[in-house]
Amino acid sequence: MAKHSKKSTNLWSTPAAQVLRATDDTRVEEIDFSLTPGFDGTKADAQELLAERGQVLSALQEKLYANGRSGDLRSILLVLQGMDTAGKGGMVRHVIGLVDPQGVDLASFGVPTKEEREHHYLWRIRNELPGGGKIGVFDRSHYEDVLVVAVHDLVPRQVWEPRFDEINAFEKELVDEGTLVVKVALFVSPEEQRTRLQERLDRPDKYWKYNPGDVTERGFLPQYRLAYQRILDRTNTDYAPWHVIPADRKWYSRLAVTELLIDALERLDLDWPAADFDVEVEKQRLANS
Amino acid sequence: MAKHSKKSTNLWSTPAAQVLRATDDTRVEEIDFSLTPGFDGTKADAQELLAERGQVLSALQEKLYANGRSGDLRSILLVLQGMDTAGKGGMVRHVIGLVDPQGVDLASFGVPTKEEREHHYLWRIRNELPGGGKIGVFDRSHYEDVLVVAVHDLVPRQVWEPRFDEINAFEKELVDEGTLVVKVALFVSPEEQRTRLQERLDRPDKYWKYNPGDVTERGFLPQYRLAYQRILDRTNTDYAPWHVIPADRKWYSRLAVTELLIDALERLDLDWPAADFDVEVEKQRLANS
Repeated sequence: MAKHSKKSTNLWSTPAAQVLRATDDTRVEEIDFSLTPGFDGTKADAQELLAERGQVLSALQEKLYANGRSGDLRSILLVLQGMDTAGKGGMVRHVIGLVDPQGVDLASFGVPTKEEREHHYLWRIRNELPGGGKIGVFDRSHYEDVLVVAVHDLVPRQVWEPRFDEINAFEKELVDEGTLVVKVALFVSPEEQRTRLQERLDRPDKYWKYNPGDVTERGFLPQYRLAYQRILDRTNTDYAPWHVIPADRKWYSRLAVTELLIDALERLDLDWPAADFDVEVEKQRLANS
Repeated sequence: MAKHSKKSTNLWSTPAAQVLRATDDTRVEEIDFSLTPGFDGTKADAQELLAERGQVLSALQEKLYANGRSGDLRSILLVLQGMDTAGKGGMVRHVIGLVDPQGVDLASFGVPTKEEREHHYLWRIRNELPGGGKIGVFDRSHYEDVLVVAVHDLVPRQVWEPRFDEINAFEKELVDEGTLVVKVALFVSPEEQRTRLQERLDRPDKYWKYNPGDVTERGFLPQYRLAYQRILDRTNTDYAPWHVIPADRKWYSRLAVTELLIDALERLDLDWPAADFDVEVEKQRLANS
């Protein structure tokens, strides 16, 4: 259905959706985040390919949107997790920016507000689920409630521990209702993170992206890795699997997520919706108008 | 601040923000919607220029977003009005799609829902106003409440007539609170509208865009023009002026709206926000981390 150029087929030795999918054996601490698993091209290759594959993604997204407008309730939910500087914002700008903004439901989850704290942690998440035909994008997500809360002991273990099962049940419900869930964890190496934070301190046009808390969090890297490993161990389900993306090279991580979205859309196997009117009658009405 | 290439300066004999701005003398029925006011280039010129100016727009938008993140409450609100097939959806896709989706608050206003009908007509509008640092985009707007309701007598004249003053007061309030309001009315000729509807009936991948009601509405074109003229006469204020955009040529209308947005952002005259932390202290903290 989607065009596969010879080039794109050649540059991926293994499809992104396959090579990046977490398994029972995935160990976060053993992954080299500077690598580009499955992709044999250069940065220039990846950038050229991103533009080309962006058109494929955009065409598939329009078809999803068209079906949504015609009453199809299916949707995609991209869950983006990753530490500061891992490239979540750039992913939204450069990958989600490739498709029609009308077809995107974007939600960003920060420190819970007072109102949010008065509800179950999934309340704000449910409020932002994508409508039919949409690509929902979560910049952080319900996983913060088993991540930052565990790393910083914000709630006791007996509170966050049951959440893994709750999250699995929640995601099962989403999938059963027709939402294809694509979970992505972006990882950068401590060295690359330092470089990116340094850039934010060296360039006045990047100050706004800098938060002193980011340096504080660097002291908790081992705890974050542990917490992410726990997330993979507990929530990497068949119906909502995780993808672990080495993100030291932005050109790789962006291309990889583009491929994951194309793969998800292709799995929906969409056609253009049929006319819900009589085409010949309407042609005549238009001719007479 | 923004780059102006020699080319772009040359191709516009009069800036879009100037040539398209409605005046007291603007008469909708006298405008030739196939023209490209102020622009002397070809379709190919316009497409090339759109890509170039899109980068200018994107850079300015990032600065607006950065200021919003730093607490600046200013925003842009693009109000898109126009009949079916005038190109509102394409405007969102091809112009708003040029900037970071994270910086866009998009709202589409259709036939009011039951809940919306139980509130003042501005209730749903207020709920969708852009946050600080955002570009809000209204695909249809509060103007439907003096437009379609007047054309089809959905409410009596004594109900919609006072709304012009209410809308002016509402928009004054927005402007006073720091929202720069850019109002755009897109117009296509009846012939071009027929061509576009015909295409939706000829191509199965366009059926989803077709609505039999669109042909019905063609019978009300004179009433719509009258209603739009009334909107221009009553709500073309100094603080929230209208722009009337001939839209038979999509490449022109898209480029024109891009220029209006660039103009609006340049009028905000933004700098990058200052650091709200001690840069040297943070550099030291990072080095030690």
